Amino acid sequence: MKKSIIALLTLPLLLSSYGGMWEPYQMPSLKKELRDAGFYKNVESISNPFEYPMNAIVSLGYCSAAFISPEGLIATNYHCVERDFIQPNSSLENDLFEKGFLARSKAEELQAAPGQKIYVTLESKDITNEILQGTSDETESLERFKIIENNSKAIIRECETSDEIECRVRSFYSGETYKLEKVLQLRDVRLVYAPPAHVGEYGGEIDNWMYPRHTGDFALVRAYVGKDGTSKVYADDNIPFTSDSYLKISAKGVEEDDFVMILGYPGRTNRLLTFNQREYDLSEGFQNYVDFLESRINLIETHTNDEDGSSLVYRGTKSGAENYYKKISGQIQGAKNFNVLENERNNWRGFMQYVEKNATAQEKAYLNELLAIIDKDIATTESNRYFGGSTLIQFANYLLRNAEQRNKPDLERKSGYQDRDQEAIQNQIKYLNNAFNIRVDKELFLANIKKYRTFDADLRRPIYSQALNLDSDENTMLLKIDEIYSTNYSTPEKMLELYEMSFEEMMNLEDPLIDFLKVVYEENLSYEEKGEKSAARKQLLKSKFIKLLRNYYDSIDKQIYADANSTLRVTFGNVLGISLQDAVYYHPFTSLEGIVKKNTGEEPFNISKKLENLINSKDYGAYESKKLGSVPVNFLSDLDITNGNSGSATINKNFELVGLAFDGMLETIISDYSFVPQARTISVDSRYLLWTLDKVENAENILEEITIVN
Amino acid sequence: MKKSIIALLTLPLLLSSYGGMWEPYQMPSLKKELRDAGFYKNVESISNPFEYPMNAIVSLGYCSAAFISPEGLIATNYHCVERDFIQPNSSLENDLFEKGFLARSKAEELQAAPGQKIYVTLESKDITNEILQGTSDETESLERFKIIENNSKAIIRECETSDEIECRVRSFYSGETYKLEKVLQLRDVRLVYAPPAHVGEYGGEIDNWMYPRHTGDFALVRAYVGKDGTSKVYADDNIPFTSDSYLKISAKGVEEDDFVMILGYPGRTNRLLTFNQREYDLSEGFQNYVDFLESRINLIETHTNDEDGSSLVYRGTKSGAENYYKKISGQIQGAKNFNVLENERNNWRGFMQYVEKNATAQEKAYLNELLAIIDKDIATTESNRYFGGSTLIQFANYLLRNAEQRNKPDLERKSGYQDRDQEAIQNQIKYLNNAFNIRVDKELFLANIKKYRTFDADLRRPIYSQALNLDSDENTMLLKIDEIYSTNYSTPEKMLELYEMSFEEMMNLEDPLIDFLKVVYEENLSYEEKGEKSAARKQLLKSKFIKLLRNYYDSIDKQIYADANSTLRVTFGNVLGISLQDAVYYHPFTSLEGIVKKNTGEEPFNISKKLENLINSKDYGAYESKKLGSVPVNFLSDLDITNGNSGSATINKNFELVGLAFDGMLETIISDYSFVPQARTISVDSRYLLWTLDKVENAENILEEITIVN
Repeated sequence: MKKSIIALLTLPLLLSSYGGMWEPYQMPSLKKELRDAGFYKNVESISNPFEYPMNAIVSLGYCSAAFISPEGLIATNYHCVERDFIQPNSSLENDLFEKGFLARSKAEELQAAPGQKIYVTLESKDITNEILQGTSDETESLERFKIIENNSKAIIRECETSDEIECRVRSFYSGETYKLEKVLQLRDVRLVYAPPAHVGEYGGEIDNWMYPRHTGDFALVRAYVGKDGTSKVYADDNIPFTSDSYLKISAKGVEEDDFVMILGYPGRTNRLLTFNQREYDLSEGFQNYVDFLESRINLIETHTNDEDGSSLVYRGTKSGAENYYKKISGQIQGAKNFNVLENERNNWRGFMQYVEKNATAQEKAYLNELLAIIDKDIATTESNRYFGGSTLIQFANYLLRNAEQRNKPDLERKSGYQDRDQEAIQNQIKYLNNAFNIRVDKELFLANIKKYRTFDADLRRPIYSQALNLDSDENTMLLKIDEIYSTNYSTPEKMLELYEMSFEEMMNLEDPLIDFLKVVYEENLSYEEKGEKSAARKQLLKSKFIKLLRNYYDSIDKQIYADANSTLRVTFGNVLGISLQDAVYYHPFTSLEGIVKKNTGEEPFNISKKLENLINSKDYGAYESKKLGSVPVNFLSDLDITNGNSGSATINKNFELVGLAFDGMLETIISDYSFVPQARTISVDSRYLLWTLDKVENAENILEEITIVN
Repeated sequence: MKKSIIALLTLPLLLSSYGGMWEPYQMPSLKKELRDAGFYKNVESISNPFEYPMNAIVSLGYCSAAFISPEGLIATNYHCVERDFIQPNSSLENDLFEKGFLARSKAEELQAAPGQKIYVTLESKDITNEILQGTSDETESLERFKIIENNSKAIIRECETSDEIECRVRSFYSGETYKLEKVLQLRDVRLVYAPPAHVGEYGGEIDNWMYPRHTGDFALVRAYVGKDGTSKVYADDNIPFTSDSYLKISAKGVEEDDFVMILGYPGRTNRLLTFNQREYDLSEGFQNYVDFLESRINLIETHTNDEDGSSLVYRGTKSGAENYYKKISGQIQGAKNFNVLENERNNWRGFMQYVEKNATAQEKAYLNELLAIIDKDIATTESNRYFGGSTLIQFANYLLRNAEQRNKPDLERKSGYQDRDQEAIQNQIKYLNNAFNIRVDKELFLANIKKYRTFDADLRRPIYSQALNLDSDENTMLLKIDEIYSTNYSTPEKMLELYEMSFEEMMNLEDPLIDFLKVVYEENLSYEEKGEKSAARKQLLKSKFIKLLRNYYDSIDKQIYADANSTLRVTFGNVLGISLQDAVYYHPFTSLEGIVKKNTGEEPFNISKKLENLINSKDYGAYESKKLGSVPVNFLSDLDITNGNSGSATINKNFELVGLAFDGMLETIISDYSFVPQARTISVDSRYLLWTLDKVENAENILEEITIVN
């Protein structure tokens, strides 16, 4: 990784083939592409996020969704409502996962877990100048960091005029652009319909990221407000939110090659990286990360058991690690299959040739500095991976820092430690009740630290290393860790006590855990500051880099789009099958009959006898695709989505809902990192949703409320 | 299984949709079907097994093959030459599996293992009357058995006029018809060409029975004869056999939907069973067998190790069991997927309705008796599975029986114990050197016998059970088995000593193994006789059954064909893809590029750099399919093959070789048992063979010798 800049200059960048998670304002400039894909309406009609159909699109925070009636009825994925809508309303006697749930009137709708919200974006504006006000390219980095942070805090404070409203500063293009998003929080959300799990998550983990797919990954919720129409938390007399804009639902659906687009809130992508980062990731980084995850999974398996309940407590952590393991492994495989490294090398080479010819000396210097900083980051990536890893130490340190910050007036505190953040901090501690066991935590930390001490001293934190006896023999180190873990503050209850203490009270405690934190406190602060300096410098350097990149894109007649950042995006294209393996073709539609074919009677392929009989009776109603000769269940399109897009409306050229996007394919999941045109999005078909509501559930109340287009 | 005949009468049989492993003489009656499939030549041209192209088809005994030059050059599968052509010519220093082998002149061709033969069928005639001469429907069953056996021995003796000639009595339709096959044995066969294993068995066990497939499963051998033109064993001055008939090889190949047929020697199918057998197999029998295999595999894994070499010795046994395990498991799955039991039930019902109306009282009685006998067989299937299982006891008993038989004149001995069989018996003993370990054998036997003793006494052999103390406590039984296994005759060498002894010498031996055999000797004979009686009775009853079935088939305008029995058969149809899973379509051709795509660098997906470069260079030569845009590697057709068909010529409507059949698909392997129209045969494409000989091997000598059609 210690490549000279010269070597890099002869090489490298990015954005290979399109993909595109476009901001709505970009649509007019994509007229040709939209026409090519089969969209003939005025492109202005999809360029304003605050007009129909864009303003029918909402967010659950972690998922996307869409209004589908004027009374606040919302369609999203089943997997988006499992944890916070179905779980809290289920019991052994009344297991909604098994039975599913349908409210046959609004009165029957079920309250979600506290804190569940629907977010409706009200405004979005460019605030780059405001955020950077007071900085220049010459501002010292730490100073720059503080100015940006303070500007940001002030803007948010000014924007959040009531507790209905949440405001967010979003960075686009690594801080080249900042936007302020003003969002209405609807705080009373209720479950209206969820199919049983044998439909909603049919195929389970086995089919996750897989096609052919047969998952009925749909659910309906409804947003409520106070009688005065303002956002309120749950109350009996709340009334349905009036949704000015909502999507009609197509019973005709789409066919192969039809135009489709997806509107939603994709979370995060990494498509605008420099090539040195790519080269590290693809030749070492991903594999190292997968190895790390694998060892974590094994450790959890080894050190948890059913007897003391620890296996349940770490189930979420483990399945999260397994999910990532599957995903990153898929990315490694995909990178190989699609020659991602070579393609990115060629892209970067093209960019650098452009830079050589067109950039000023100053711009070149900035770019070289950026590459050098990233090389430095890469050099410590591995040791940083194994630094820490103790939830106990991490939380205690977090609370100490929080106590210190709370000594200051609210506006002077760092982001994340302000009054608006305090409830979330307490919730994080409470959450540990279901995700933390001190014995297991110690084992996980031990495994990390044993690895950490094998790194060269200059890749480690010196005081931390000394405090933990990392350069002594292993026993001496273990004794120290035993000592720290003998703390009084080893449970969420005790941590809540810490939370209540002032900084001074904490610093006066006599406890081996707190004693350790005192030793490393200054070092932690200095590394925090280092991080802030580096972040501010990178923000500047990346802005310069993005400007060059924009120009380069202009020069080759391509358009650039920002990495996903949980803001509203549009992706468009066509319903399309794919061949990813020699002699194997995936047709874009799966059918009801495929559900029966996969049925084994055992989870996750265990449909009810009733559903099996209904499918076998071939009573397709108005929801049959004549071409397919059945009701389509899931379909493929060449659209560009990522995590956070789950539940996004897939709409046709008339803006009718034809599906809900819910997954990608493992073979092309590398697209999150570097788009490949073979990438496919899996949506659950509106016809399967309607057929289910009609034939399986006889949900007349819903079918009457929504607008079905035949 | 104890169904009353009445219940069965309201039910059941067989032959659902066609398939068809036809005897050549049947082709004229299939004119319409042939025309429908795209064959427009005179159908008489493919009805005589002793005319071109049929007489170009030969057998290796366990595989099929075809002459492809006038000088005895033969094409077959790679996997058909591994054990007896490549293995004996390989060493650590000269590993032909790794390097492959090409003789650039006849002088370089390599001798196969001793005993390897090419069989050329010279005559085939119906001898049913001769075989049954001296019997009537009223002949007592044991008498009937003896008459048939004696007739058969006499016919063979008369037919085998020289050691060039082997004659076989083949039973068709369970003994409704007998045919005499006169075969020329070519006893000097040499390896001409085999690709390296990374081509010839690319994909290995993982891809076995799978598609998409990319296996270069082809090899070339040559038959030699003495200078006088007669069959001789290997000698330096032997000369190539003159093959009057041989197939030209197509460089144009076939495309989707083209007519193809396969000529070869399929080994065994089970498509003419009664429904009570089907019902048992599909509801219990297959699963029991799979469970048995699984326990065998586990036992071998547990009780063998590398230290004493036993894991190597049992490798073949184990991989055989694994192969069967995979196959039968696939059949169980396929039976479920294709509703085989229900389909067979309906077929049988149709047949029984016909029987009710049209059969005589005598015919019905015969049928009922057949069903009852099969019910009885079924009742003892499970206990019989666990009877025996000791290779030690089995061989010693075999040798005792052989010694007893050798006391008689040759013609009076039972089949299998005649002079013509003695060499094979000795070879079987010698083979134990590579497949037998007394410690492991005892463990396998113990596992069997522990299960066997759990069956009701009336399902077991009484004297055998008593001699092994099966009804005593386990320790007493184990002591007995220990005793038997303490025999002096526990090695192949010692068994060869037994082989040399007369019956009287053996009976006078004092040895725990022989002592045990003496105790059960009479019981064994009585069960042998029981078996013979039952076989003869079933031969009669099945002949009657088949006659009814023929009439039934006539009445519904279907043609019947005999189960595979290692005689020459023709199957015809089209090059065709298949969809076996919702939304997944298998294209009928795989391509060179697919080889590279599967390549991981690790066995069994480890092509050479040279091959990879050649493929990537896209130098397709004259072997490209324009439609595919590449050289086809393997292709699918809807033809009907089974074990023994490996290496069969796949030919086009002009009788040119377009491929070599080598596998079926696991998903439809149930076809061996009950044909399903979704069944597909995988052939390696002639264009891949030619491309390999040309571009990879530069095998000019071969390319000049064969006739390539462009």
